[in-house]
Amino acid sequence: MCAAGLAAWPGWVLSGCMCRWMAYSGDPILAEELLFRPVHSLIDQSLHSTMGATTANGDGFGIGWYGEGAEPAVFKSIEPAWNDRNLRELAGQIRTPLMFAHVRASTGTPVQRSNCHPFRHGRWLWMHNGALRGFHMIKRDLLMAVDPALYADIEGSTDSEALFFLALTFGLTDDPFGAVERAVGFVEAVGHAHGIEHPVQMTLATTDGRSVWAFRYSSEHDSRSLFFSTDVVALRRLHPEIDILKSLGDETRVIVSEPLRDLEGAWHEVPESSAGVIQPGRDEVRPFRPVVSA
Amino acid sequence: MCAAGLAAWPGWVLSGCMCRWMAYSGDPILAEELLFRPVHSLIDQSLHSTMGATTANGDGFGIGWYGEGAEPAVFKSIEPAWNDRNLRELAGQIRTPLMFAHVRASTGTPVQRSNCHPFRHGRWLWMHNGALRGFHMIKRDLLMAVDPALYADIEGSTDSEALFFLALTFGLTDDPFGAVERAVGFVEAVGHAHGIEHPVQMTLATTDGRSVWAFRYSSEHDSRSLFFSTDVVALRRLHPEIDILKSLGDETRVIVSEPLRDLEGAWHEVPESSAGVIQPGRDEVRPFRPVVSA
Amino acid sequence: MCAAGLAAWPGWVLSGCMCRWMAYSGDPILAEELLFRPVHSLIDQSLHSTMGATTANGDGFGIGWYGEGAEPAVFKSIEPAWNDRNLRELAGQIRTPLMFAHVRASTGTPVQRSNCHPFRHGRWLWMHNGALRGFHMIKRDLLMAVDPALYADIEGSTDSEALFFLALTFGLTDDPFGAVERAVGFVEAVGHAHGIEHPVQMTLATTDGRSVWAFRYSSEHDSRSLFFSTDVVALRRLHPEIDILKSLGDETRVIVSEPLRDLEGAWHEVPESSAGVIQPGRDEVRPFRPVVSA
Amino acid sequence: MCAAGLAAWPGWVLSGCMCRWMAYSGDPILAEELLFRPVHSLIDQSLHSTMGATTANGDGFGIGWYGEGAEPAVFKSIEPAWNDRNLRELAGQIRTPLMFAHVRASTGTPVQRSNCHPFRHGRWLWMHNGALRGFHMIKRDLLMAVDPALYADIEGSTDSEALFFLALTFGLTDDPFGAVERAVGFVEAVGHAHGIEHPVQMTLATTDGRSVWAFRYSSEHDSRSLFFSTDVVALRRLHPEIDILKSLGDETRVIVSEPLRDLEGAWHEVPESSAGVIQPGRDEVRPFRPVVSA
Repeated sequence: MCAAGLAAWPGWVLSGCMCRWMAYSGDPILAEELLFRPVHSLIDQSLHSTMGATTANGDGFGIGWYGEGAEPAVFKSIEPAWNDRNLRELAGQIRTPLMFAHVRASTGTPVQRSNCHPFRHGRWLWMHNGALRGFHMIKRDLLMAVDPALYADIEGSTDSEALFFLALTFGLTDDPFGAVERAVGFVEAVGHAHGIEHPVQMTLATTDGRSVWAFRYSSEHDSRSLFFSTDVVALRRLHPEIDILKSLGDETRVIVSEPLRDLEGAWHEVPESSAGVIQPGRDEVRPFRPVVSA
Repeated sequence: MCAAGLAAWPGWVLSGCMCRWMAYSGDPILAEELLFRPVHSLIDQSLHSTMGATTANGDGFGIGWYGEGAEPAVFKSIEPAWNDRNLRELAGQIRTPLMFAHVRASTGTPVQRSNCHPFRHGRWLWMHNGALRGFHMIKRDLLMAVDPALYADIEGSTDSEALFFLALTFGLTDDPFGAVERAVGFVEAVGHAHGIEHPVQMTLATTDGRSVWAFRYSSEHDSRSLFFSTDVVALRRLHPEIDILKSLGDETRVIVSEPLRDLEGAWHEVPESSAGVIQPGRDEVRPFRPVVSA
Repeated sequence: MCAAGLAAWPGWVLSGCMCRWMAYSGDPILAEELLFRPVHSLIDQSLHSTMGATTANGDGFGIGWYGEGAEPAVFKSIEPAWNDRNLRELAGQIRTPLMFAHVRASTGTPVQRSNCHPFRHGRWLWMHNGALRGFHMIKRDLLMAVDPALYADIEGSTDSEALFFLALTFGLTDDPFGAVERAVGFVEAVGHAHGIEHPVQMTLATTDGRSVWAFRYSSEHDSRSLFFSTDVVALRRLHPEIDILKSLGDETRVIVSEPLRDLEGAWHEVPESSAGVIQPGRDEVRPFRPVVSA
Repeated sequence: MCAAGLAAWPGWVLSGCMCRWMAYSGDPILAEELLFRPVHSLIDQSLHSTMGATTANGDGFGIGWYGEGAEPAVFKSIEPAWNDRNLRELAGQIRTPLMFAHVRASTGTPVQRSNCHPFRHGRWLWMHNGALRGFHMIKRDLLMAVDPALYADIEGSTDSEALFFLALTFGLTDDPFGAVERAVGFVEAVGHAHGIEHPVQMTLATTDGRSVWAFRYSSEHDSRSLFFSTDVVALRRLHPEIDILKSLGDETRVIVSEPLRDLEGAWHEVPESSAGVIQPGRDEVRPFRPVVSA
């Protein structure tokens, strides 16, 4: 939490999440390879983030992954990621084809496990970097628009989780792109009605365990950073000297807030106001345009 | 959490709080005297509760007290009370004329600091032992009825906090008895509309730092235990052999879920379906009758 | 922590661990089956222990298991086991042929992750229920006898971990039975020299990932409870009505402080002052006789 | 924990504490004034330290202060200081004439409450910024030299606490300057015997509740930063425009790792290899020269 956040603390007027996250999809990989190997160190980013709005992201972390059973498992904790020995232990035991990982720097809502990402609903995971500005003012309007059948499943108090439940309400499980466009459109409409000029700042990822959708958008069209990895086969040709690439499967895809390490040609920035999907078959990238539903 | 709670865990269908609490009002006293001295051991009750619905109350604790400044301070933690060394340290340093203390055994909502009692709003503190049954079903209806200006101040996800905010909405700060009667009446009405036979189980305490209001009520008229202490002057005459009574001030009043120790004549049970107030001047006890507002 | 422990708190004169534990060896099994299924509920024991010295075991828990890599992984936490949602999540994902699980009720040393069991050294795990009496008095003598090359690997402050490191010093990795007999003999000698009549109370389990050694012994020959499971093939014949037995592998062996559930013929008590080993080939039970090394 | 520390994590070969701390002595002051007011923000330093070896100090914090009773109270937690709401609450209630505050960035030993500073023994508090290099190698030799009567009072596993107990062994309570010189001399001798070139890096503070001793020394004579505050009376004359100075008592003394804010003339650097004492009567500064006891 930055000094400005501290000054506002009693009133909790700030909200949102200034974080770092990473999504992996591909051949089964040991979580440790993604979280702790220096070339893949989200944990290192949690301490020395260079691109984020805050330097340290020590307000909790979470990982979600698909393994036994239909629904993903989630391990979340309010310990700073670099401290948590259980995370280190587990990362050496979890082998998975799809994983979300998130480190949090809160500016407002309490630091508690239920406010850590990724959030889960059924088979779906969701994580967010950004904020819904003026959340304290618009929270009631947003939550009252959540499907009554889903309302009581909301466990925490973040804007990120609220956005997730709005997306679920607007049909995330059938049409992720459309649902998020409608959810963001709704938030912007409510925000504007409350005099908030730029209600939404976000990079987002969501998954059903098969495909991964990612979004980069902000009302002010100056969004947090988001990168996706170059095709591994191509990357091996570019960098035959890097051993780790030989052990990564051909289907490896990684989406990150901040490149895991500088490697020429390894990362492509996701364009401003766009969304994409990693899926069996052909990946897709398209413009992202919030929609206000009737 | 009891075995029944574990069985239901995935669905979080149970809610509520099965706890122990204690309110003190009187001459300034060291918190340690109330929390740890064997004769006053709420901490011991957290481990070996004999009267509660569960044996151990290890899902967090909290204390609220009045000292520096106008608003009360609150120290809450998800560590079981008997483990928390910080609580022990602080209790030896906090001297206060009015203190609330609560140990929690959750049956539903997450164990996190924002779900620990006492809850605070401005000068007011609130703590609860009991449950709003079927809370998962009625939560949205209850929270929609909370004053929109207060809604976003709700930090946690418990029924206890929801009831607090309903009471605030119904005028707690002006008319505590009436506000709680209206809040409970409202919850019962909503519960019945959802087919819940006995929506409310509660012993409650709330305070503005000057007076302490306590309530004992349940829809089924079979409420959790609640006791208040005999006048200390009278108690000294009854028990000249007990040293501690000499050091307690004449104005000492204690309200508890469970007597702190067996002592003949020391405790009076609060009658079923009644409420009372400890205040400067004359204390008062009266029937408690939920009201459904128009 | 019981009231007696609280009374002694400032001086930390009590030490030891009054806990419940369970060891599983057999076909790979989902940890959830052992920890949370009502028929296997060590977590339920953590809240409602009927046979232990204290009712609740809420001072932390730990599990250790063998999976990826040569060394076991360990997940430990100071949250009471019944609260910890991460444990629930992980248990649904960990499939292992050998697992140790332990819930702790401390009476002395701080509640911190490094004081939770099981302890690990290389490939070895170790867990303990009991106490080294007068530990505060004899701690220095015990730790000074630990192999200097191992000394700085001690992370916590419990007697249980101290006993582990003494066993390692006396040759645990080569001769577990002999090493523990020598370690216990040493502790008894030191204890007696300090005027402690009955220095050791223990049920113990240790493993190298292939075999599991268990011990039941106390200086006063009145040891904590310890049971091992009947051969599953035989148990199926005894109880054809119990479905779960059909899904357990034939090689299933379980050693517990307290039977997981009452089931006629399912549990055999380990005799007083004895030790045993579950291993490929033939299991073994033998008397346990502490030895004082020259 | 810096990246180098992460890389070494499995072996725990690094040790020590790279932290920030602050000692206050003077008229009774509300802890909040020292910890959170922007002009006094140690909490802000915990997130944005500019002068320390790491940027964030998120591995726990602690405060110790003198109030009720003879011995100081200690509130310590492994939550990063900027997250801890309880700290914020307490700081608004604690009024004290003498306070130690410390935020920790560990590079080795576990993050647990017993490894947070300040450490306490009887009336004495102790906190440290720095490291005893090669601690894993020399730990046994150091702890064997601790007075056997004190040995079992050591609760954690840090070098900082080990140094404290060596100082106690060498007579801290009678002759603080001499005791610390002898303790440091001993550590250097042991370190050199193990081939460690520069065993000690430290800024230290210790107090008995009346006087505060501070030390700045390192074997390589390139020590962590340490500053003490200018006399408040003089500072008011220098800066009549700063309101806060009018509310600080004339006896205010503050010693810090890092200036709380840039204010011309407010801070004086403690010279390399020196020690000082704040006491009733006349403060003192003198050279610090480690001594090897016979």
